[in-house]
Amino acid sequence: MTSSWGDQLKISLFGESHGAAIGAVIDGLPAGIPIDPELIKLEMSRRSARGKALATPRKEPDEVEIVSGYFNGKTTGTPLAGLIRNHNTHSGDYSRTRTKMRPGHADYTGWLRYEGYQDYRGGGHFSGRLTAPMVFAGAVAKQVLMHQMPSLYIGSRIVSIGQVSDHKHVAPEQYDRMKALNPMFPVLTESIKDEMEKQVETARDEQDSVGGIIEGFITGMPGGWGNPIFESVESRLSALLFAIPAVKGVEFGSGFDIATMRGSEANDPFFIEGGQVRTRTNCNGGINGGITNGMPVVFRVAFKPTPSIARKQYTIDMEKQENTTIAIEGRHDPCIVLRAAPVVEAVTALCILDLSL
Amino acid sequence: MTSSWGDQLKISLFGESHGAAIGAVIDGLPAGIPIDPELIKLEMSRRSARGKALATPRKEPDEVEIVSGYFNGKTTGTPLAGLIRNHNTHSGDYSRTRTKMRPGHADYTGWLRYEGYQDYRGGGHFSGRLTAPMVFAGAVAKQVLMHQMPSLYIGSRIVSIGQVSDHKHVAPEQYDRMKALNPMFPVLTESIKDEMEKQVETARDEQDSVGGIIEGFITGMPGGWGNPIFESVESRLSALLFAIPAVKGVEFGSGFDIATMRGSEANDPFFIEGGQVRTRTNCNGGINGGITNGMPVVFRVAFKPTPSIARKQYTIDMEKQENTTIAIEGRHDPCIVLRAAPVVEAVTALCILDLSL
Amino acid sequence: MTSSWGDQLKISLFGESHGAAIGAVIDGLPAGIPIDPELIKLEMSRRSARGKALATPRKEPDEVEIVSGYFNGKTTGTPLAGLIRNHNTHSGDYSRTRTKMRPGHADYTGWLRYEGYQDYRGGGHFSGRLTAPMVFAGAVAKQVLMHQMPSLYIGSRIVSIGQVSDHKHVAPEQYDRMKALNPMFPVLTESIKDEMEKQVETARDEQDSVGGIIEGFITGMPGGWGNPIFESVESRLSALLFAIPAVKGVEFGSGFDIATMRGSEANDPFFIEGGQVRTRTNCNGGINGGITNGMPVVFRVAFKPTPSIARKQYTIDMEKQENTTIAIEGRHDPCIVLRAAPVVEAVTALCILDLSL
Amino acid sequence: MTSSWGDQLKISLFGESHGAAIGAVIDGLPAGIPIDPELIKLEMSRRSARGKALATPRKEPDEVEIVSGYFNGKTTGTPLAGLIRNHNTHSGDYSRTRTKMRPGHADYTGWLRYEGYQDYRGGGHFSGRLTAPMVFAGAVAKQVLMHQMPSLYIGSRIVSIGQVSDHKHVAPEQYDRMKALNPMFPVLTESIKDEMEKQVETARDEQDSVGGIIEGFITGMPGGWGNPIFESVESRLSALLFAIPAVKGVEFGSGFDIATMRGSEANDPFFIEGGQVRTRTNCNGGINGGITNGMPVVFRVAFKPTPSIARKQYTIDMEKQENTTIAIEGRHDPCIVLRAAPVVEAVTALCILDLSL
Repeated sequence: MTSSWGDQLKISLFGESHGAAIGAVIDGLPAGIPIDPELIKLEMSRRSARGKALATPRKEPDEVEIVSGYFNGKTTGTPLAGLIRNHNTHSGDYSRTRTKMRPGHADYTGWLRYEGYQDYRGGGHFSGRLTAPMVFAGAVAKQVLMHQMPSLYIGSRIVSIGQVSDHKHVAPEQYDRMKALNPMFPVLTESIKDEMEKQVETARDEQDSVGGIIEGFITGMPGGWGNPIFESVESRLSALLFAIPAVKGVEFGSGFDIATMRGSEANDPFFIEGGQVRTRTNCNGGINGGITNGMPVVFRVAFKPTPSIARKQYTIDMEKQENTTIAIEGRHDPCIVLRAAPVVEAVTALCILDLSL
Repeated sequence: MTSSWGDQLKISLFGESHGAAIGAVIDGLPAGIPIDPELIKLEMSRRSARGKALATPRKEPDEVEIVSGYFNGKTTGTPLAGLIRNHNTHSGDYSRTRTKMRPGHADYTGWLRYEGYQDYRGGGHFSGRLTAPMVFAGAVAKQVLMHQMPSLYIGSRIVSIGQVSDHKHVAPEQYDRMKALNPMFPVLTESIKDEMEKQVETARDEQDSVGGIIEGFITGMPGGWGNPIFESVESRLSALLFAIPAVKGVEFGSGFDIATMRGSEANDPFFIEGGQVRTRTNCNGGINGGITNGMPVVFRVAFKPTPSIARKQYTIDMEKQENTTIAIEGRHDPCIVLRAAPVVEAVTALCILDLSL
Repeated sequence: MTSSWGDQLKISLFGESHGAAIGAVIDGLPAGIPIDPELIKLEMSRRSARGKALATPRKEPDEVEIVSGYFNGKTTGTPLAGLIRNHNTHSGDYSRTRTKMRPGHADYTGWLRYEGYQDYRGGGHFSGRLTAPMVFAGAVAKQVLMHQMPSLYIGSRIVSIGQVSDHKHVAPEQYDRMKALNPMFPVLTESIKDEMEKQVETARDEQDSVGGIIEGFITGMPGGWGNPIFESVESRLSALLFAIPAVKGVEFGSGFDIATMRGSEANDPFFIEGGQVRTRTNCNGGINGGITNGMPVVFRVAFKPTPSIARKQYTIDMEKQENTTIAIEGRHDPCIVLRAAPVVEAVTALCILDLSL
Repeated sequence: MTSSWGDQLKISLFGESHGAAIGAVIDGLPAGIPIDPELIKLEMSRRSARGKALATPRKEPDEVEIVSGYFNGKTTGTPLAGLIRNHNTHSGDYSRTRTKMRPGHADYTGWLRYEGYQDYRGGGHFSGRLTAPMVFAGAVAKQVLMHQMPSLYIGSRIVSIGQVSDHKHVAPEQYDRMKALNPMFPVLTESIKDEMEKQVETARDEQDSVGGIIEGFITGMPGGWGNPIFESVESRLSALLFAIPAVKGVEFGSGFDIATMRGSEANDPFFIEGGQVRTRTNCNGGINGGITNGMPVVFRVAFKPTPSIARKQYTIDMEKQENTTIAIEGRHDPCIVLRAAPVVEAVTALCILDLSL
């Protein structure tokens, strides 16, 4: 019970970083929804693109072959399976000693969990590469939502990279305009882009990496979706967000800042205008009692710095059962956050589509 | 699909604040585990107790009647159901206009979700009162864990109340000593208790409320538990934590602070000593790749201030479809955080027991 | 993971034959559906009624107290819990040696499964008494379906008792008229009632018991419901039917007889008349490829004879680990089939309601 | 929610008869289990082999490419995905009018369910071809069971083909010897093979088809497995058996015949011998109260005749909404029962493995 998810929709991810292929099966889609392969490509490229500073030798095309559930350009309603061949399957470039546990990675926990039988090459099933089928599934989910609820929009923006931060909290009426953000580098303050890239370059130059925060949001979200208690929108969405490798925190609305507020500040006052109910503020992130209230659903996701760094680190050798050091070779992406926006949007789309069915 | 949860264990909560009874059915427990009613009472009292400053007229005994699954002092292995009778079932003291939506509450979203048919009295199924069967179920889960894994310990502490904050991050080796914290007011710095209570009293005097942060932790946690991707420990646990009313943020290890770190700081270095593998730091909160690594599992949970406040607030009347104001009568608990620790521990126990089965 | 079921709807059953109470929690009901307690009572009485010949000293009123999810005569949409108190909780009348395993019962398998900790009194959680909360849940489901799909009808009839058999297969056009069957003794051939009762009396007089077959059916069933493969209507429905104690066979349409047919007989030919598609025959029981085709859904359920008989039987003593004999005291219902119709209808209603949500 | 199944194990099937590929993802396997591709091939060949009389032009090699979850000849514990390419993807040979509904097939119900968007070629996702990934998944499950429980054996035999029937009920002590049955044509009475083949040939010559009955069994099954009520072994297993296309009946032990028995016959008497508990008869098919009792688990599965027949049949045209006739071209397998044994064993293996985890 590991890599399957869903309630109405069932998503099954499979694959390892250096295996033959990775992919996803999406079961429970409605029939007759047009799926445009170009829109899938767009999302896949957002996930794999790197700036010049961030160039990496691993440039897999990540082409998705849809092998089922898709007929005459539309969903059939039966399971839609997408397959992504790995091209980088020789482990030569991951020649690190198998038994040295990379700090911050799942090498050690994977070893414990799978008793040493896991495919350790490149992190195996734990690899960030598994976000590719996530993004594929999310790209399908986005198109289904687009077709069935044209006014609903799922977006995201980079809040911070390392020490550089864009606006943390934004007024609720601003979200409608955020559709115009650059999908490849979505920030509110255009000038901050360079500073953020500088953070990444500096880290890379120092053989290190940086983390950051992504804000996800949904506009045009109908009120009354979700459930109390165990199936709250926060519960459903956080479970999917924490499924993304490297995520260590999730907050809704004012999030952790709400803990320092008074009730009189945190209680978003309702008002009605032109027959539409809204709230003045959105400290609750569009969710009360686990159910959407029609305001933008807003949440932030904390990503830790890429654990793969070239610096020497202390660690252990599992076979020798002794202390040692490790320096991870290869040119690693020093900041996955720059490519995390489409992943956050993908799981959000899956969550909302599941709720809608 | 709302108030049921679980994988191995199945928990089904039911009830409304002012209905006949609330309760929980726990399905999937192992057989033959001794359950001490006194330990259940202790957890129930931690949830309902209030300091003198926090006195509330609603003092339900919250006695749990176990009606099934319990025989000769032990679990039978078949569903264990606990029933808690409500004594405060006349809605006289909740005479607020049914159609005025309390800001920060689920009145409006519940109305949308259930088309006006929900039991609105005292918040109905959305009431914080539903944490009582959660704590009951957690108290059973704790005893099963205690019996099967005596070295595992689930605890929690108050990190902050309003503007007053105890230590945010604690070194991993400190957690073992935290079993000694006062269960009724678990703080690291004894002197901070008064300051925290002062925050609450001031808020109450100003007809307002305050939020806060609880840290949950698990010591003696074996490594290798959990799963990659959708069934990560973070995914499972966060889903349950966000099921607690008023929770708006969940973070593991360094949480949101990890987003400003470098990889060289955030990658907890492994070392081995006396045959035991540990990490020097615990920025990842005892979890790598969704799987426990044997270090203390550490997470923080942000609670918003109690939405029920006596102050006048702006809101709407759903029937008249017009703007209005509301002042919530009655003496409300101005800070649920002081009683939230057993609830956080309860859902943690359910999560870990589910993983263990 | 034992006594919980459902996909959209979640049903959680609890209780033991001689414990304090039995009951069911139904989660996922739509809001605002009127529920008439009298109709619940009617179904409960169908389950517990016995003819004069079948009189039993155990006459529990089986009154259901709805403790949640029900407000102003309608469902609230939150979990609806029903509680049935047991009145026969002293085990005096079940003074049989705990360690002697009753043949045909779950005493031995329950002992293995729960390591001897199960509540053995009267069969505990395995008791046929657990069909009471099933019928309660089904009575609620029936009313929801009645409200939302007035033309849909779920019924059943007794096909055989012991050696006496009513018509096995019935032409599809007959089913609409079956609403008129006597709910307390639903047979097609009125004169067969006496013969069937005679079978039961004779068995009882010989300190024995008899089994029988119930046919369940759904008329007014829309086409296009269900799913291929694992979630076929046959899969869903059979899983629920086999959850009824004593069921040993389930067949749809012509069932086992279809195995002797030719394709040219078994392929129900389609025709269209007045814009409505139907089939001439109904060998497939209204289901093709796991999905309803609009014809009556028809299935038969084989019940074994009541395992509780007064005759001496060979068995074992678990504690002594030796061979012995047992004669089960008390006056047992020698034919549960006469009361099984409402149970079959109840789980069918749960299944169809789940599909409809 | 259609083609996914499981509790501990999660199986996700995908594909259509004439699409690019079909396959299965198996999530939740234990790590480190050796999987022999030859044993997978053997099961695949049992499913696709045909006698000389049964020759069919469609001879797909059905080679499975395992693309994940398999490393150094062993399971990794992460999702194991198998892909089977279709070679017969041009719909030329299925040139039948798309809008004519084949009687006994899922053409009409699929049309309703998927609003005409389903891949209709060769039955699409409803095709018997989907039993190929089932058999693949079952072949993996069998090997895991073989490794973890060497004394457990899952087998099956052909009980009847058309009007020709082998022994229906077999004494429990016979099952251990059934491992020696010919896996390609498993019958008890060797001489009956010819008669059965004759039934098939005659049907084929008459442009018709025949059904039959398969008996599945498990020997070496430990007692105490399964659960009461909704998760009974009968419930779990029947749900999977009814997922096999063409299955219309499932019975355990004496099955429908038990309905005519007396309790004194149907109650299998326990006895103990050499410390081992057994029953004299096995009318309950190795299951009491939903839980295994250590006797062979025995069940029979009724298959309807292949719905594809060359004879002219009455049906409708969906687009023209009028009555018409159809004759299905091509040489179809007139009796799928001869190849159904490995499918029955496959889903049984999945069910038992799921229970074991």
